[in-house]
Amino acid sequence: MIELKVDLGERAYPILIGAGLLGKSGLLAPHIRGRQVMVVTNETVAPLFLDRLLGCLGGVAADVLELEDGERFKTLDAYARVMDALMEKRHNRTTTIVALGGGVVGDIAGFAAATFQRGVAFVQIPTTLLAQVDSSVGGKTGVNHPDGKNMIGAFHQPSCVVADIAALDTLPEREYRAGLAEVVKCGVIWSEGFFAWLEGQAAELLRRTPAAVTEIVRRSCAIKAEVVARDEREQGLRAILNYGHSFAHALETLTGYDSLLHGEAVAIGMVLAADCARRHGLLDAESVRRITALLAILGLPVRMPKGMDTESMLQVMGMDKKVVDGRLRLVLPERIGAVRVTDRIDRQALLRTLAAAIGRAAHPKTV
Amino acid sequence: MIELKVDLGERAYPILIGAGLLGKSGLLAPHIRGRQVMVVTNETVAPLFLDRLLGCLGGVAADVLELEDGERFKTLDAYARVMDALMEKRHNRTTTIVALGGGVVGDIAGFAAATFQRGVAFVQIPTTLLAQVDSSVGGKTGVNHPDGKNMIGAFHQPSCVVADIAALDTLPEREYRAGLAEVVKCGVIWSEGFFAWLEGQAAELLRRTPAAVTEIVRRSCAIKAEVVARDEREQGLRAILNYGHSFAHALETLTGYDSLLHGEAVAIGMVLAADCARRHGLLDAESVRRITALLAILGLPVRMPKGMDTESMLQVMGMDKKVVDGRLRLVLPERIGAVRVTDRIDRQALLRTLAAAIGRAAHPKTV
Repeated sequence: MIELKVDLGERAYPILIGAGLLGKSGLLAPHIRGRQVMVVTNETVAPLFLDRLLGCLGGVAADVLELEDGERFKTLDAYARVMDALMEKRHNRTTTIVALGGGVVGDIAGFAAATFQRGVAFVQIPTTLLAQVDSSVGGKTGVNHPDGKNMIGAFHQPSCVVADIAALDTLPEREYRAGLAEVVKCGVIWSEGFFAWLEGQAAELLRRTPAAVTEIVRRSCAIKAEVVARDEREQGLRAILNYGHSFAHALETLTGYDSLLHGEAVAIGMVLAADCARRHGLLDAESVRRITALLAILGLPVRMPKGMDTESMLQVMGMDKKVVDGRLRLVLPERIGAVRVTDRIDRQALLRTLAAAIGRAAHPKTV
Repeated sequence: MIELKVDLGERAYPILIGAGLLGKSGLLAPHIRGRQVMVVTNETVAPLFLDRLLGCLGGVAADVLELEDGERFKTLDAYARVMDALMEKRHNRTTTIVALGGGVVGDIAGFAAATFQRGVAFVQIPTTLLAQVDSSVGGKTGVNHPDGKNMIGAFHQPSCVVADIAALDTLPEREYRAGLAEVVKCGVIWSEGFFAWLEGQAAELLRRTPAAVTEIVRRSCAIKAEVVARDEREQGLRAILNYGHSFAHALETLTGYDSLLHGEAVAIGMVLAADCARRHGLLDAESVRRITALLAILGLPVRMPKGMDTESMLQVMGMDKKVVDGRLRLVLPERIGAVRVTDRIDRQALLRTLAAAIGRAAHPKTV
């Protein structure tokens, strides 16, 4: 078992990574504060892992709430259902909420933990690659508003994250690949060495060899933990983790959170941001090509979905929460391994990025 | 103008107290972070003070959301309406939410500020006595769950609190008196001197003389600020501010948040807690009499409302958020000016307190 630490002073917590951690008797006992546990999971994950999880609680009886599966259920309504369950089962402020599932479950359950009786303990058991390498670490919690992704939420750090690599064995191929997008992101924003390693290991990653999967979870969590430790509440540096995400959130909003997985939207967003960086003279064409090629070889979409238009994209991006006083801020790569966050966006360059991408999507044969 | 400081390090903020502060041009300008303001108020308060408030913003244009007036509207639905308004008006993370109204408006707007895009700036303009002396200071925000008061919420400090004493001129008598309950609470938990001063000034307080009103706001805010500065997130000391509140929340839950004002419920709760303290051998009968008498002379209810029963009270108190691992914790006075927080509650003593109070309520003539 690998143990990483997210170094946040009195809110520091461990990330435990390994194959077969779920089911280890008593693994979670040190992280259960009181005598009540509410497991929040979903209808897909529960049949696979719930029994194993219940064996980790060191004898504490748990209540369980199963939510519906999917980003379109990441709503205030689902959040209210967690509150209802906590009240109905008479949980008090020493309860521990355990999220068992992917990013949606973790975000909803985390927001419930942040706000039930003004904050209770929280444990993350991510069961998707995306959640293991990204969303379970860092304390961002929340739900979507119909008009914007993650618009409602809070920072609330878990007391422990358990990434059981074996849980990924049953992950559908498409979801696994979507998780790889955030892994590639870590390379682009932080480490050319890791990016190059990913280029070399693409075949291993697609075969999900345990060694390769463990390594991407370890490296991605280590990078994210370092960024978050330096800037917990996104006053500065942490914004680099949003590379590709302004475009991605706009795509998700416009497609109704349904046709694109988050990681797929991020893959497209990273390509768009790289292209936009090139048009700003920040990034060379070869790096754009490498980013696009790595994502494509990992089976991720790198082109705009059909039906998008420049106008709608811009409008939704204007509303995106990364806007400060009406100015769009983007994370643009300067090279593979380093990005800058800037609100000095040339509107024409951005428009050309969008128009070119939309043109390609509409007429794929003419590219 | 009196300026107090809530000493919370990087989250420190001023409380401005005075008559006629609302309408002072530019008063709030230093506390508006960006170029967007969302005023959250209610249908009762808006006609009285909204124009004056808008004159304090230093030229920043504000959007306004009027909520319905009353504790029973302190719900997730009202909170969702604030989110909808912020999204509809395209507010971003540099917006400032300004609460103009009583405790309900402040709690809802504060929770919205705590959770819109994971936290935005927040200014409190309390217009009721209860809000000026209690709920606007300290950073507790939230809404009620149908099964329990304030069960959903967050800690989120305002960047400024403005208590305009003149706003109280139009406050209905019943609401004004309800606010006095929290003032009396400050005396019981912290200062025998202040309590004795209140006993001597009861007539002035009922006449609302500006000097007396200014003094109770100043003293109550100073006491609350000191307690909150020592224990922002209620790990220990801050719990003393809940004196009377476990009983009060149970009463409010059982009466549907409608027939009792919060301050009225607190008044009854303080009498019950004092009686309970006496039955535990902590408080002498003369102090119980003084607490009861001061509340009564200020026009506050000191007896259980009709229709309550011991069973329901205990059940709801078992669910109250001041319970740790199923053990009820109560704030019990040891003398006027000092209380202790204890979970060593003698169930029989608590039952006798409730039974005696319910007996009196059911047969008032036989007391």
